[in-house]
Amino acid sequence: MGKLLIVGTVAFDAIETPFGKTDKILGGAATFISLSAAQFGVNSGIVSVVGGDFPKSYLNRLNARNISTEGIEIIEEGKTFFWSGRYHNDLNVRDTLTTDLNVLANFNPIVPDSFTETDFLMLGNLHPNVQMAVIKQLPKKPKLVVLDTMNFWMDNTLDELMEVIAKIDVITINDEEARQLSGEYSLVKAAQKIFTMGPKYVVIKKGEHGALLFNEENIFFAPALPLEEVFDPTGAGDTFAGGFIGYLAKTDDISFENMKRAVISGSNLASFCVEKFGTERMEVLTIAEIQQRLLQFKELTQFEIELS
Amino acid sequence: MGKLLIVGTVAFDAIETPFGKTDKILGGAATFISLSAAQFGVNSGIVSVVGGDFPKSYLNRLNARNISTEGIEIIEEGKTFFWSGRYHNDLNVRDTLTTDLNVLANFNPIVPDSFTETDFLMLGNLHPNVQMAVIKQLPKKPKLVVLDTMNFWMDNTLDELMEVIAKIDVITINDEEARQLSGEYSLVKAAQKIFTMGPKYVVIKKGEHGALLFNEENIFFAPALPLEEVFDPTGAGDTFAGGFIGYLAKTDDISFENMKRAVISGSNLASFCVEKFGTERMEVLTIAEIQQRLLQFKELTQFEIELS
Repeated sequence: MGKLLIVGTVAFDAIETPFGKTDKILGGAATFISLSAAQFGVNSGIVSVVGGDFPKSYLNRLNARNISTEGIEIIEEGKTFFWSGRYHNDLNVRDTLTTDLNVLANFNPIVPDSFTETDFLMLGNLHPNVQMAVIKQLPKKPKLVVLDTMNFWMDNTLDELMEVIAKIDVITINDEEARQLSGEYSLVKAAQKIFTMGPKYVVIKKGEHGALLFNEENIFFAPALPLEEVFDPTGAGDTFAGGFIGYLAKTDDISFENMKRAVISGSNLASFCVEKFGTERMEVLTIAEIQQRLLQFKELTQFEIELS
Repeated sequence: MGKLLIVGTVAFDAIETPFGKTDKILGGAATFISLSAAQFGVNSGIVSVVGGDFPKSYLNRLNARNISTEGIEIIEEGKTFFWSGRYHNDLNVRDTLTTDLNVLANFNPIVPDSFTETDFLMLGNLHPNVQMAVIKQLPKKPKLVVLDTMNFWMDNTLDELMEVIAKIDVITINDEEARQLSGEYSLVKAAQKIFTMGPKYVVIKKGEHGALLFNEENIFFAPALPLEEVFDPTGAGDTFAGGFIGYLAKTDDISFENMKRAVISGSNLASFCVEKFGTERMEVLTIAEIQQRLLQFKELTQFEIELS
C-alpha cells in the first residue's frame, strides 16, 4: 500500500438545495478527497490551512479515519475558508453566494517530514502556485501525481497552471474545462491535446453522465450510478478523485487496467457522497455498502457479446 | 430469426452542419431504422408513404438490403415528406428550417399481408394515430413492440400517445422526454413511472452521453463511443433503435441479458451513422467494421474488480 499526500482546501460550507439547507458544516476539497481515499484504509495526510475558528472535533473526525492532519496549519487569529452556495431544482446548476478566502488568501503550504517521501500526491483544486509549492518540496517525484483544477484557474492563472500541468501524471477536469483547456470540442481530441501539455492520463468528469479515462492508446468509461434521488452534489467531484487515487494507493498499481478499477471506485464513492449533505454520508459509509454498490456497477455495465 | 415490421417516415432531408451541406437526400425514421436493422440480415418491411417525386433508385437501395418496400405507398400526385435543418457548432443543437409534411399529412398506413404476422414491430416516430392504426391491423400481438416517439407528440397529441404507450413493450425516448412524460427529474423515477403506463422496458437515449435500459428490476447503461469527429447526427437515434430491434429480431431472444447486447449494438451502429451525411455511412458499412467497433465498446466498458 502506498502513502498518499493530499493538498487542498479544508473549509466551512453552507449549502442550500431544494431539499433543505445547512449551517456551516465541514467541507473543502481535501476533506472530501481524504474521506473518500480513507475508505481504502490508505495512510494519508492533508496539507492545508484553517483558522482559529476551526473545531478540533473536525480534525478528530479526520484523524479517526487514519488521515493525518499534521500538515494542516492552524492560524489562530485567522478565519477558515468559507463557501456557501445554492443549488437550483436542476442540481447541475448552482449559484455561489459567498467565497471568503480568509486564511487561504496567503496560504504557504508546508509538507510535513513524514510525507515528503509520499508515493501518491493528490493536488486538489486550489491556486496553482500552492500546488507547485507542494511539488517543489518533495525531494523525489512520487509514483503518481494527480491534479484536479477548474475553469477559474484557467481564466485567471493560466501560465501558472500550465507549469503545474507539465509536472503531473493525471489531470481530472470536467468536460467543459477539457474543452476550454484544449480548444477542442471533441473530448477525444481534447484529451490528445492535453497529453501534449504533460499528463499521461486525462480523466474527464461529466457529473451524472459519468467519467472518461484516457491515455494515448486507450479510453475507458465509468458511468455514474443512476440514482433515484440526488440530495446534495457538493464534494462529488472531490470524492470521485479521492476514490480514484485512494484505490491506486491501496493497490499500489498504476497500470491502465488498474486505473479502470480506480475510476469505477471513484464513481462508486461519489454516488454515496450525493445522498446526504456535505460529508455526512461518507462518514458513516461501510465496506459492505461499497461492495454492494460495486456489484450494481458491474450489473450496470458488464455484458457478454459474441465477436466473430 | 424473427420478422421485423417498421412503420415510420421515408423522407427527403436537407442538412447543414458546420462541415458542409446537402441537397435533398434520402432520410426519414423508417429509412434509418431499416438500414440499421439490415446489418443483422433481418427480413424487414417498411410501412410508409412517399410522393411521385421519390426516386425508384432510393427504394432499390433499400430492397438491395433485404428491406421490403411493398408497404411504402406511392402517391403519384403527391410530394414526399421533406425536412431540412441546420446544426450549430455544438451539434447537439439544431434549428429546423423546413417541415413539409406533404403526403404524410393524410397518411393511412396499410400493413402488407406478408407482414401482418410479424414477430417484431418497430413504431418509428410519427403521429400516434398512425402507430395505433398499424397495431390494430395485426391479428395477434407481436413478440415485441418497440415505440419511438418525441416531445412534439407529448405536447400535441398526449391522449392518443398514451393509448399507444399502453400497448407497447419498449419505449425509446430521450432524457428530457422521459422527464416530460413522467413529471420526474430523476431518470430512475421517470422509468418507474413510465412502467405504470404500460411498457415493461424503458430505453432512455442521452445522445453523446449514451443510453439507459430499464426494466422493473434492472438497469443497464450503454455509453456512446467517444468519437474524434461527429459529422452529422441526423438519424443517430433511429439508427440506435434499428440496431436495438434488429439485434433482438436476429437473435429472437427478448431476455434482459440479450437486451443489453441489443442496446450495445444500437449504440455501436449509431456511432457509424454520425460519421457521414444522412445514410451515407450506413450504406457502405461492413460486418468487419461493426465487429471491430464492438471490440472497442468492450474495451471502453469492461473491467475486472474483486468483490469481497
